[in-house]
Amino acid sequence: MRLAPSPDRLLPADPATRALARTLYESVREAPILSPHGHVEAALLRDDQAFTDPADLLIVPDHYVLRLLHAHGLDLDELGRGSSQIEPREIWRRFATHWHVFAGTPVRAWFEDTLHSVIGLDEHPSAANADAQFDAIAAWIAEDGSRPRALFDRFDIEVLATTDDPAAPLDAHAALREDTSFTGRVVPTFRPDRFFDPSAAGWRGALDELHAVSGIDTGTAAGLIRALEDRRAHFRSLGATATDSGVVDAWATRLSAGELERIHRAGLTGEATDADAAAYRRHMLWEMARMSSEDGLVMQLHPGVLRGHHRPTTERFGPDTGHDLPLFSRYTEPLRELLGDFGTNETFRLVLFTVDETSFTREIAPLAGFYPSVFAGAPWWFLDSPDGIRRFREGVTDSAGFYKTSGFIDDTRAYLSIPARHDVSRRVDAGWLATLVVTGRLGEEEAHTIAHDLVDTIPRSVFRL
Amino acid sequence: MRLAPSPDRLLPADPATRALARTLYESVREAPILSPHGHVEAALLRDDQAFTDPADLLIVPDHYVLRLLHAHGLDLDELGRGSSQIEPREIWRRFATHWHVFAGTPVRAWFEDTLHSVIGLDEHPSAANADAQFDAIAAWIAEDGSRPRALFDRFDIEVLATTDDPAAPLDAHAALREDTSFTGRVVPTFRPDRFFDPSAAGWRGALDELHAVSGIDTGTAAGLIRALEDRRAHFRSLGATATDSGVVDAWATRLSAGELERIHRAGLTGEATDADAAAYRRHMLWEMARMSSEDGLVMQLHPGVLRGHHRPTTERFGPDTGHDLPLFSRYTEPLRELLGDFGTNETFRLVLFTVDETSFTREIAPLAGFYPSVFAGAPWWFLDSPDGIRRFREGVTDSAGFYKTSGFIDDTRAYLSIPARHDVSRRVDAGWLATLVVTGRLGEEEAHTIAHDLVDTIPRSVFRL
Amino acid sequence: MRLAPSPDRLLPADPATRALARTLYESVREAPILSPHGHVEAALLRDDQAFTDPADLLIVPDHYVLRLLHAHGLDLDELGRGSSQIEPREIWRRFATHWHVFAGTPVRAWFEDTLHSVIGLDEHPSAANADAQFDAIAAWIAEDGSRPRALFDRFDIEVLATTDDPAAPLDAHAALREDTSFTGRVVPTFRPDRFFDPSAAGWRGALDELHAVSGIDTGTAAGLIRALEDRRAHFRSLGATATDSGVVDAWATRLSAGELERIHRAGLTGEATDADAAAYRRHMLWEMARMSSEDGLVMQLHPGVLRGHHRPTTERFGPDTGHDLPLFSRYTEPLRELLGDFGTNETFRLVLFTVDETSFTREIAPLAGFYPSVFAGAPWWFLDSPDGIRRFREGVTDSAGFYKTSGFIDDTRAYLSIPARHDVSRRVDAGWLATLVVTGRLGEEEAHTIAHDLVDTIPRSVFRL
Repeated sequence: MRLAPSPDRLLPADPATRALARTLYESVREAPILSPHGHVEAALLRDDQAFTDPADLLIVPDHYVLRLLHAHGLDLDELGRGSSQIEPREIWRRFATHWHVFAGTPVRAWFEDTLHSVIGLDEHPSAANADAQFDAIAAWIAEDGSRPRALFDRFDIEVLATTDDPAAPLDAHAALREDTSFTGRVVPTFRPDRFFDPSAAGWRGALDELHAVSGIDTGTAAGLIRALEDRRAHFRSLGATATDSGVVDAWATRLSAGELERIHRAGLTGEATDADAAAYRRHMLWEMARMSSEDGLVMQLHPGVLRGHHRPTTERFGPDTGHDLPLFSRYTEPLRELLGDFGTNETFRLVLFTVDETSFTREIAPLAGFYPSVFAGAPWWFLDSPDGIRRFREGVTDSAGFYKTSGFIDDTRAYLSIPARHDVSRRVDAGWLATLVVTGRLGEEEAHTIAHDLVDTIPRSVFRL
Repeated sequence: MRLAPSPDRLLPADPATRALARTLYESVREAPILSPHGHVEAALLRDDQAFTDPADLLIVPDHYVLRLLHAHGLDLDELGRGSSQIEPREIWRRFATHWHVFAGTPVRAWFEDTLHSVIGLDEHPSAANADAQFDAIAAWIAEDGSRPRALFDRFDIEVLATTDDPAAPLDAHAALREDTSFTGRVVPTFRPDRFFDPSAAGWRGALDELHAVSGIDTGTAAGLIRALEDRRAHFRSLGATATDSGVVDAWATRLSAGELERIHRAGLTGEATDADAAAYRRHMLWEMARMSSEDGLVMQLHPGVLRGHHRPTTERFGPDTGHDLPLFSRYTEPLRELLGDFGTNETFRLVLFTVDETSFTREIAPLAGFYPSVFAGAPWWFLDSPDGIRRFREGVTDSAGFYKTSGFIDDTRAYLSIPARHDVSRRVDAGWLATLVVTGRLGEEEAHTIAHDLVDTIPRSVFRL
Repeated sequence: MRLAPSPDRLLPADPATRALARTLYESVREAPILSPHGHVEAALLRDDQAFTDPADLLIVPDHYVLRLLHAHGLDLDELGRGSSQIEPREIWRRFATHWHVFAGTPVRAWFEDTLHSVIGLDEHPSAANADAQFDAIAAWIAEDGSRPRALFDRFDIEVLATTDDPAAPLDAHAALREDTSFTGRVVPTFRPDRFFDPSAAGWRGALDELHAVSGIDTGTAAGLIRALEDRRAHFRSLGATATDSGVVDAWATRLSAGELERIHRAGLTGEATDADAAAYRRHMLWEMARMSSEDGLVMQLHPGVLRGHHRPTTERFGPDTGHDLPLFSRYTEPLRELLGDFGTNETFRLVLFTVDETSFTREIAPLAGFYPSVFAGAPWWFLDSPDGIRRFREGVTDSAGFYKTSGFIDDTRAYLSIPARHDVSRRVDAGWLATLVVTGRLGEEEAHTIAHDLVDTIPRSVFRL
C-alpha cells in the first residue's frame, strides 16, 4: 500500500472550513519547533552518533508502539526488551506484520509522517516489504544527514528541553553549552519525583546520590529540601526554565516540620507506611510550588498515572514498558492549599496536565481562567491525538481562552517523531480556529494571530524560554 | 477590527445543515424570552434608573468577565472591586486592551452581540478605541430607551425570575406587581442555602432575620422548617414558581428529629462540626423536596461548586469574584432516598443542573428518563457555551429526549446580555435539530415543533410559569 | 407523518464523507448478524409460537420504551406491567400518543426501522392511526413469516447468544441443538451474579437450586466454586463461549480461604454484612477470571449499574422496569490484581463494558491497548446510540485501535429490534471510517477491510464463536 500522507490530513472535512484551515496551517507549518517538555537525552546530541538500527531507532524504546504490539500477543522480549537477543530485523518484521493494529491511532499518524517525510519511504510497512524497508532505514541511518545534530537542524528545533534527575550531573548539557559547533538550545528540566517516596526501595539510595552531588546532608527532610534547592540553582545555571512532577495525584498539602521529619526518619529506617508516603509526597509537591514561587522555574504537574500496572512485566522488563495507566483525576480541591499560598504570586507558574480529559473542562480550564499562575497544559500521552487535541480546544477554550493554554509539548523519547507530533498539533489547532471563524466566533485575522501565538508567543511566554 | 456578528453564527458549517438550521433558528429568533432562573434584581426594574457607567454596566459586577482578566494578571481592585477608587474609564481601558484574551469564549460571543445589537457599536474593543467606546456607551446609557424597563420591553422578556433570600422582604416584587405602568412579569425564587450550614459564621444571624420576618421562632430545626414553609407561601403569593439550592453536593438524606435538633443546637452554640453541617444540609435538602411535593414550587438543584476557592481573594473582595470552581459531581446515589420518597409524586418537580458535564449522560439524563418529576437542567455556568450546549443535547437526548429537558436558563446578573445568551441557545439548538434532520433522525416538521417547544412550551411547563 | 427512514440515515452530513460512508456501509449492510450478547430466550426459538399481540411484542417487555413513557407520567400498570389487566390496544394507544417523547432517541431510530422494515408500516405512530396500526401489527403477527424462526432466517442471524442462570437446565438450548429443522446457532451464556451476594434474600435458595442441578454441595464457598465450574462445563457442552457479570463495580480482589468461608457461613445464617457481601462478590469475580483462564470461556464484565433505583417501583413491578441507573465507574485500580494474575494468560479473555463513557478513553482503551486478554466492549445500554457509538470510536481508537474492540453487541430482549440495532452500529462505524479516510488518517482500502472485520472477523475472534 502506497504511503503518501495527504497534504490536507487532519483538517476538517467541510470544504469551506478546510480551505481556511489550510491557510492557517500553512502560515505556521514551518515555524521553528519549541519543545519545552520531552524525554530525549542531551547525550544524544552531545555524542551525535549514528542511530544503532531501525528497530532501536523506531520501535524498542517507544512504549506507545510496544504496548499495542503487546496487546496483540507479542511478548516484550520478542520486541527487544529485557535480556532479549532477538535480531533487530526480526523486531521490524513483527512490527511490519502488525501494522494494521495501529490503524486509526496517533502512533500510526506519527509513524507515517516519520517514515515518509523524514526517512523517505513510500510504502506502508507490511510482511512483504519488511526486509526491504529495514534495509532502507538502515541505509538512511548510515547517512551523515541522519545523525542527531543534522536532524536537529533539519527539524528546525529552536529549543529542546530534556527531563533530568536532580542528582544528574548534567554533563551533556554543560558540554553542549560549551560546544561552539552546536548552536541549538538544549535545556534540562528538574524532575525530583523519586525523592518524594520515603516508602520506596530506592529512596535512601537516591538521598545518598543527592548528598554526593550537592554536598548537603539529606538525612533530614530539611536537608533534602535544601539539597533540592541547591540542585535547582544548578539546573538554572545550565538553562533550565522548568520543573516537572509525575505524581499519582495532584494533592499538595503542607505538613508540620515535626511530622515531616518523623516521616523522613521512618523512611530511613524502612518504616514509612503508605499513608506516610502519601503525606510526604503531598508536602513535597507544596515545597516545589514554594520553590518555584521563589526561583521562577515553571512548575509542570503531570499527575494521575498509575505506573507499572502489571507487576510481573515490571519485574521482568522494568519501567516504561507500556502499562502505565490513567487514573481518574481531580484538581480543584487537591490544589486549593497550594494555590491559596502561591496562586497569585507573580513569580509562580503552574502548568497542569492530565490523562483524564474530563478534568480539562471541569477543573483545569476553570482554574486557569482565574489564577494568573495557572495554565492548561496541552493534551498529554493518551490524549495527544488529533481528536484529543480537538476536544481539548473545545473544552478548554470556553473557560480559559487560548492565552491560558501552554502550547504544544511532545513529551517524547522518539526523536524522529518530534516534527510529526508538532505537525499534528498545528493541523488540529488550525482546524479548530477555522471552525471558529466559519461559525462566526472569531475573525479570520485574529485566527491567524492566534495560530502564530500558539506555536510561538505562548510557549515562549508560558515556559519562560 | 470591525464588529459585525455573522447572521449565521453558531450554525453548523455544513451548507445543507446550515440552511436548515437557519430556517429553524429564524422561526424562534423572535420568540419572547422566558427567563426562569437568573440573578437580576427586582429593584432594577422597580427603580428604572439609568445605569451608572459603562464599567459598572458591563464589567465590574460580571464575574465571567472579571475572572479571565484576573487570570491575565489584573488585580480585582484594578477592575473596580473591593474599596477600589479606580475610574470607570480606566476599567474600560483595561478591558479593551485585553479583548484578545476572550477570543473563542462564550463571554466574547455575548459581549459582541450586546455591544453590536443592544448598544450599536461597530468595532471590537481595543486600546485605540477604548475612550471613544467608553463615551459612546456612556451616551447610550443616558438615553431613555436604555433604562431597564425600556430594555425589558425591547428584549421582549415575558417572564423574569430573580433569586432571593427567604428573609428578603420582596418589596420590589410587591411594588412591581402593584405598578400598573409595568406590565412585565418578574417573579421571585426561593433560595434558602444560607440556612443550611449551622457551622457558618452567619448562620445564627440568618436565623434571627428569618425569625424577624416570619414571626416564627427559628431556635429549633422544627421552627426553622416551619419558618421556611411560611416564607415559601409568601414567595408564592408574589408569583414564585420555583426554589433553588446551590449546595456543594447533591446528597439529600434524612436525619432523625433528635439528631437534627442536636445539630441545630450545636450550631447555635458554635459547636457544629463539618460532619454535622453536611448531615444537616443534606437533611434540609430533603426537606426542600418534601415541601416542593406539597406546595408545588419547582425545585432547582445547582450542586457541585466549591465557592471561594482562593481564600485571600474572598477575604479581600467577597463572594462572586470569579473563583467558584466546579467539582466532580454525582446524582444517582445521592438522590436515591429523596427520589424514593418523592420521585413519583405528581406535585413534585426537580430540575437538575451540573457543572460536571460527564454527569449529564451518565446520571442526569438517565434519571430524567425514568422519574416523572425529574428534568435535565440546561447547561449552566462553565458549560453555558455553544459547544457545551451542543454536547448537552448530544449527551442528554439519547436517554431523556427533548421533553425531559428544562429549556434554557440564562442565570445571569448581566442584564444586557440576556438576549444574547438566549440567542446562543436558540442557534445551537437549531443547529442540533438540523443535524438530526440531515442525518435522518428527525422529520423537518417535527424539528420545527421541537424548536418552538424548546423556547416556549417546555420552559412554561417545566417551571410552571 | 409518513414513515420512510432515509437510506442515508446516520451517515455524516458532509457530502464527500457521506458518499464514502455509504459505500462502506453498503459493503457490510447485509453481512450476517453475530449477536454474542443479548437477552432473547432460547425457548422463543424452540417453541416458535406466534407473538402474542403488538403491545407484548413491542412495548411491555422493553424497559427502554417503558422508562421514557413512565418519565412522562404513565404508570407502569397502564403499560401492562405488574398485575395490570389493561388491554393491549390501550397500551398501544398510550404509546402512540406519546411518540414525540422519543424524538431524537435511539429507541425512536430502532422503532422506526422495525415498524418500517420488519413490519411494513408507512406512518409514524400517532393518536389518529393507533387503532389501525395496532390491527396491522396484529395481522402481521398472525402471518407464518412473522414467527420467531422465520424471522431468525429473515434477519440472517448466524449466532445468537442468550443469557442464562447457572442453575438453568438449558432445555431449550439442548432441544434446539437436536432439532434438525432449525439450523441456526443459539448458544447460552453463563451469568452467575445471583450467587455472588450472600447478603441477598434469595441467595440461599439459589445455592439450593445449584446444588440440585449440579449434585455438588454448595454449603461451602469451595463447594459453590466447584458447582459453578461444573455448570460452566455444562454450558460449554451446549455451545457457550462466554460468561457475563453485571456487578455493581469492577473490583476483583482475592480473599483468603478462611475469610471466604467465614462470609459464606455468615450468608447461610443471614448475618453477612454489606462489607462482607462486597468482599465476597469481589473474590468471586476474581474466581470467574481464574475459571476463564482455565476453560477459555470469554469473560464479559458489565459493571457500574445501580439496579432498582426506585425501591417502590421494584416492590410493585419487579426488576427490569426502567430504573437501573448508571454509576461513575473505574477499572484501572479495581482490575489490577485480576490482571496481574491472568492478564497475560493466553487462554484468558476479558471484554470490558461500561455505562460511564468517560472510562472508555481514560481506562478501558488504555487497558485494552496493553493487555492481550482485554478488549473494549461495544457501547452498551445508555451509550448504545448513534452519538454514543461515534464517541466510543473516537475515544477508544486512539489507545486501542480497531482490533482491540469487541464488535457490536445488541444486548436486547426486543427480538424484532435486533437488525435495527446492528444496522445503527454498521452505519455509524461506516461514518467514522469514512471520516478517518477523508481526514487522511486511513486508506480507503483499509477502511473497507476494517468495516468488514468489525462485523465479522473481530466478533468471531473476540467471542470465540
